[in-house]
This record gives sequence, structure tokens and C-alpha cells, in this order.
Amino acid sequence: MTRTVLITGANGLIGSQVRKALAHRYELRLLARRPIEGVEATVADIAQFEAIRPAFEGVDSVIHLAASAAVQSPWDAVLHNNIIGTYNVFEAARQAGVKQVIFASSNHAVGTYEMLYQSDPDQPTSRIIDHLVPVAPDSLYGVSKVFGEALGRYYADHHGLRVICLRIGWINAQDAPEGKPFAADTTMWQSMRDFVHMVERCLEAETIRFDIFYGVSDNPHRLFDLEHARQVLGYQPRDNAIERLRERGRLE
Amino acid sequence: MTRTVLITGANGLIGSQVRKALAHRYELRLLARRPIEGVEATVADIAQFEAIRPAFEGVDSVIHLAASAAVQSPWDAVLHNNIIGTYNVFEAARQAGVKQVIFASSNHAVGTYEMLYQSDPDQPTSRIIDHLVPVAPDSLYGVSKVFGEALGRYYADHHGLRVICLRIGWINAQDAPEGKPFAADTTMWQSMRDFVHMVERCLEAETIRFDIFYGVSDNPHRLFDLEHARQVLGYQPRDNAIERLRERGRLE
Repeated sequence: MTRTVLITGANGLIGSQVRKALAHRYELRLLARRPIEGVEATVADIAQFEAIRPAFEGVDSVIHLAASAAVQSPWDAVLHNNIIGTYNVFEAARQAGVKQVIFASSNHAVGTYEMLYQSDPDQPTSRIIDHLVPVAPDSLYGVSKVFGEALGRYYADHHGLRVICLRIGWINAQDAPEGKPFAADTTMWQSMRDFVHMVERCLEAETIRFDIFYGVSDNPHRLFDLEHARQVLGYQPRDNAIERLRERGRLE
Repeated sequence: MTRTVLITGANGLIGSQVRKALAHRYELRLLARRPIEGVEATVADIAQFEAIRPAFEGVDSVIHLAASAAVQSPWDAVLHNNIIGTYNVFEAARQAGVKQVIFASSNHAVGTYEMLYQSDPDQPTSRIIDHLVPVAPDSLYGVSKVFGEALGRYYADHHGLRVICLRIGWINAQDAPEGKPFAADTTMWQSMRDFVHMVERCLEAETIRFDIFYGVSDNPHRLFDLEHARQVLGYQPRDNAIERLRERGRLE
């Protein structure tokens, strides 16, 4: 039976790619803050619980992408969209009997490690950062992602939701890194097709009750662990940042 | 020079004891939601930033106790007092140039481990839970404490505040556990004088930039680690739950 998947933030940079990629395999429902041209969607602000609640009825999995996505987002935006909005999404999912929430977390939940690495690549933190390190948010945005992960853990442990948090590295409209090989955006880069593949693996991962994975491509220089995603999720990234730079003529 | 210490939640169960115990060593400022009889205090709701901001001027350390303290607090209360309120406290501290925030976190940030232990003492989680375990909140209240800890880490790493989070176990008005030796309230119990001593150690710990400690007495049956607090903070608990039960005639 075809499963029903609700995507929040369905018209964002990531959401619009994900919904196109998943449309052939899943019954999609879309939630967006503004109407999407030519596509049926629930138009609502995720901070308004009553407005979004009906969209969760009959849904199997939610891909929760809606957020203030800029790392420099001020507190008011973070509070409204990422804290209140994310609570509303988990609570609506619970009330509707949704089975799984895939939460777009962020590298910024642990972004301080990357900043330390960038400021001094030889210091002791320049080791692989896995899903078990203490959180170290680099911003109020990062703090809100830690909040969302903790909320997910609570709903998984105490309300039976299955929850997967993806600490997305860096996905951009150009679908290619912009910096040099060791720059943060290159070490953390994830191609759109690797991200879509990761989400597909999550949707099929019916035995994971709660977990955290890093969303990065197979970049030769990176801080973030991929082994956990490879082993537990079956994530098999096909891209890497250095090759992408080379393809785009940005490396000799 | 006598240091100035601001206590939020100064008239709560813990706050009213802490302010009496510290009055002889520190210049105290008090913040409370309602007037405190016979004592000078700023009366304000911590969710109102402009109302609390003046109380932080000239303060060296903040002991942030104000919160919805019940584990079953509904989301609206958690959001208002523990999330918005705690952000306001950290941000006011930053703006005023406060040097240190001591944040009353809670065992409920990792409370799921205790619940698993209580339901089956022989299962693998019945080991010591230290400050490095992945968070596992047992409630929306617990989630808000994870949020506060992450916020503290952010302000410590990126704004130079010194931040200590105390995952308080169980402090009550009777200053004694109520249950049997292995019950949760007994394993997690902390005497008021051990808590006050812990806060004093925090106020003197000028080299700790960020850390997390468990607030429990030296109870023979406990999940929560004390070694980290002993070694890093110099915490030396004098009480333990079983002796207290015996003193109160609740054990043969």
C-alpha cells in the first residue's frame, strides 16, 4: 500500500526538490506558508496549531523541513518558526497517529566544533564528530535544532513516534560547494541527490525508533561521521565535494 | 570585593533557602514573580524581557532558578517560563556583562534513563548516568531543560559567559526522601545543604567556562554520576538518602 508522506516547508529550497523526487513513490501531502503554483497544498503557518492540525490526518510519515533556515535568524523568528512550529508539528503528528517524523536538524546543533576546526585545523577537535558528541550550537538557530532533537527523543520514547533527526550540513541552490577544499561549506556539503536518497532510506527504516545522522556527501575532508548513517540507515552517498568542484571547473 | 549575585525564582522552594544561605557572603539581588514579604526584590515575570533587564546591571553571577518546576507542566507554561524566560535571562545577562550564569537544569533532561531503571533495575541502562550521555527527556519540562543547557553552551562558547548547569535530582520541602531505598525520589534526592554547598562551589569556580553536574546527595543507590562534580567542582556532599530515611524513622 502506498504510504502517505506530509512535507512541511514544501516550497523551500530543499522541500521543492524532495517533493519532486518522492512523488513517484509516495502519496504526498504538502504544507507551505504560501501557495505553491500549480500544486495542491495546505497553506498555513506552522506556529498556528489549529491551522496545520488537519493536514496530519491519515499521514504515515512527516518530513519536517519548515523553519527559519538562516543561521543568523534572530530570536523572534527562531522562537516562532523553529521552537513553537516544531512543537506544533510533533504534537499534531502525535494526535493524528502519525508513525514517523523525519526532522531536518542541522550541523549548527554542533557547529562550534566546525568553527574551532576552521580557526585551527590542527587542534584536537579536528577529529570526526559523531552523533554522540555533546551538542555545541553556534547560534540561536543551532540551539533551536537541539531543542527539536530533544523534543523528537521525548516523542519517540514516550509517545511511540519513530523519529529521525538529520543534521544537514550544507545544501545550496547551486548544488555545489562554493569554497576551497577545506572551507566549511565544502567539508559539510551534501548534494541534493544524496539528501533525497538519505530521506528515502529514512522512510524505509521502520525499525529505527530514534536516531541522529549527519547529512553530508562523501567529502574527503569532513568532520562529520558517515559510518553511523552507512551502517544503521544504509546511506550510500554518491557525490563528494571535491569531485563536484572539479566538475564545475573550480579546481585544477 | 563582595560579589553581586542575582537569584531568579528567589521566593521558590529552593530560592528562598539559597538566598538565606548566601546572604552572609554575597551581595544579593532578588528577582521574583510576586513580592517577597519584608525583602527587597525586583517583581517581574521573566518572560518580560524589558521588565527584568534592569535587575542584571552590575551583577557578577546569576543563579537562575525561576521556572515552571512541575514535571507535568503543560506546553504553554513550559514555553512561557522555561523557554522564553530562560532565553531572556541569558540575554539580559549578556547585555549587562554578567560573568556567570548558574542554571537550574533538571534530572528530567535525562529522566527516561531513570524511568527505564525503575521499570527494570536489571536492564543495561542501570549504570551510572554521567554528564556526557545523550539527553533523554521524560517530559516537555525535561525538553525545556535540554534547551536551557544548549542555550547556556551557546552563550558560553560565543559570548564569553561562564555557564554551569545543575541537573537537580529531587529537592523537597521536607528535605528528606519520601520513598523506599530504590525509589526514584530516593536515588535522586539532594539535601538542601548539599545543594547550597554545590551552588557555593559554582560561584567560586572561576575557571569553568561550561559544564554540567548532577545535583544529588551521596546516596548509595543512584544512577547519576557524582565523580565529575567531585573532581571538577570540589563538591563534597555530606548527606545521603538512606541515612536521612533512617533519621526520620522511615527505615529500621
